[in-house]
Amino acid sequence: MLSLMRMENEKESTEERTEIASLGEFGLIHRLTKDLGSDQPSTLKGVGDDAAVIHSGDQVLLVSTDMLIEGTHFDLMYSPLKHLGYKSVVVNLSDIYAMNAHPTQVTLSLGLSNRFSVEAVEELFSGVRAACEHYQVDLVGGDTTSSAKGLVISVTALGHCSPDRVSYRSGAKVGDILCVTGDLGAAYLGLQLLEREKQLFLDQPDIQPDLESQKYLVGRQLKPEARKDMIQIFEKNKVIPTSMIDVSDGLSSDLKHICFESKVGAFVEESGVPIHPDAQLMALKFKLDPITCALSGGEDYELLFTIDPKDLDKVRLMPDIYMMGEIVKAEDGIKLHTKGGNIHDIKAQGWKHF
Amino acid sequence: MLSLMRMENEKESTEERTEIASLGEFGLIHRLTKDLGSDQPSTLKGVGDDAAVIHSGDQVLLVSTDMLIEGTHFDLMYSPLKHLGYKSVVVNLSDIYAMNAHPTQVTLSLGLSNRFSVEAVEELFSGVRAACEHYQVDLVGGDTTSSAKGLVISVTALGHCSPDRVSYRSGAKVGDILCVTGDLGAAYLGLQLLEREKQLFLDQPDIQPDLESQKYLVGRQLKPEARKDMIQIFEKNKVIPTSMIDVSDGLSSDLKHICFESKVGAFVEESGVPIHPDAQLMALKFKLDPITCALSGGEDYELLFTIDPKDLDKVRLMPDIYMMGEIVKAEDGIKLHTKGGNIHDIKAQGWKHF
Repeated sequence: MLSLMRMENEKESTEERTEIASLGEFGLIHRLTKDLGSDQPSTLKGVGDDAAVIHSGDQVLLVSTDMLIEGTHFDLMYSPLKHLGYKSVVVNLSDIYAMNAHPTQVTLSLGLSNRFSVEAVEELFSGVRAACEHYQVDLVGGDTTSSAKGLVISVTALGHCSPDRVSYRSGAKVGDILCVTGDLGAAYLGLQLLEREKQLFLDQPDIQPDLESQKYLVGRQLKPEARKDMIQIFEKNKVIPTSMIDVSDGLSSDLKHICFESKVGAFVEESGVPIHPDAQLMALKFKLDPITCALSGGEDYELLFTIDPKDLDKVRLMPDIYMMGEIVKAEDGIKLHTKGGNIHDIKAQGWKHF
Repeated sequence: MLSLMRMENEKESTEERTEIASLGEFGLIHRLTKDLGSDQPSTLKGVGDDAAVIHSGDQVLLVSTDMLIEGTHFDLMYSPLKHLGYKSVVVNLSDIYAMNAHPTQVTLSLGLSNRFSVEAVEELFSGVRAACEHYQVDLVGGDTTSSAKGLVISVTALGHCSPDRVSYRSGAKVGDILCVTGDLGAAYLGLQLLEREKQLFLDQPDIQPDLESQKYLVGRQLKPEARKDMIQIFEKNKVIPTSMIDVSDGLSSDLKHICFESKVGAFVEESGVPIHPDAQLMALKFKLDPITCALSGGEDYELLFTIDPKDLDKVRLMPDIYMMGEIVKAEDGIKLHTKGGNIHDIKAQGWKHF
């Protein structure tokens, strides 16, 4: 039996080998899950949205999970452990809000190398607890284990919602208004800034970088918040987005998900894409186009959603929501109307980690 | 801000530093979660059992999560990827069965280094699917991400149950009968065998080890099954264990959890502890005491439970259940009555990975 396994392993290395990078994350997930069935009548929506949707009495249960790995998702050289713990929870809650639902519980699994002391784990955990308290969710379970190298954090979030209030990625209709909350690109620019300062520090350890003046950008990267407030505002105003997703991979990539799942296209006005003045300025300092940072940056954890035009007057009065385009027919593609008057295809160039 | 973080990191390394190993996994979890509160009325049981229990209509929802890390939990030198995928799901389902509940959905997160090809991930995933099909649970979500080194697998399982059927760790009463399913120690001996063969192979790669004759032990380690059948038998016979846990860390460690949570002691008859003949023989070959392997081995994924004496006649007729002792008062401790007539304290010496 052991000999057989070795033979299989050898076969794997000598026979056909497709690199994961050649498919990308979404290509890999598609290849693995394309013919995935369902045995449980309670499963209303499996893989393919921000969260799974499961029948649960007169409510639906939402489930979302994310894994954060040191070196891929965070760098402990500039991520304080407490912020990292906070962010690990927030990115999962964001997926539950993106279904227009309320998160209620999370589980946390940690893989820890012996580099981490109990005090360091307590620091990380204090951030997890701070997020749980801020968003009023309960930490109900988890796992801690040792890892050969580095830190691994896996969080699963549960939420609930009335079945008629769920916003899937697939509900956008031609003529719907495309909206986004907050502003985009700042988290990406915060990351660029932290990476630059890290390099400067590695080259000249005696120079103390000063990031105080860039608190907004750095904060967006290290300690993002999820848009709980928006879900409450939608509820209060009796608005249900026809489709919704959180901006984690970048506007272009996440908009593409909505368009693909809804079988529609989108027309985005560059002038409607909200960009914070600090992000605007920092992009120019880095010789980057601010709109490119907003489209492709990622990790904004804002909500990208569509509304039925009948709800326009209600949404117009809501704070921190920006109307930036319209849903069009699939054959019209996903386009950006630039401030200069040109029309470009928006290509999904979201954050790639493979 | 960056300078501040560096100072904090330095502080952590120069000030008090407690090694995780000095607390152990359960010590660490206790320290982190001892004063964890609850904000959500739906949270019925948080950290501290095989699964969290959440109010969900007229049912309860069970949630359990586990993280498996290469080098800590598995060695790809002798774990076929398909079996590993299967086992990753099974160990989580086992936690749901240990609550006397039915698993319904799982999520899967994978951290993959570039050593893994798409074909290798498909092989792993085929095992995940095989387990989902066998246990009739749906894979409803997950995450794939790159890792700097090695393979990380995180699975979360959801299940449901009628609220009056949940078996907690805390329900054992003095006078209850202590039972276990299947047999114990075989998975541990399978692991010893695989480790020995690996060493032999590394020393002399031209010798082909033959593990065919040890299929049972190796199979218990590489492709365990969870006791779905027992939950069905309990239901059919209208028996609800007063307490239950799955044997993942080893009988001594898991029995200690029941005793601690139930505030009781236990008296175990060595002659009642089920050990497979293959495990018996292999233990002797390794110059190990078979009962020590059964008590401390772990990864058996059998169910350890207690029943009210009034259910004794029903349980006696159920297949593959072994009565091995009795619940006693806490002050009487957790004791083993050996075949030789001696009485020893049972010390928790379960599997340690920190």
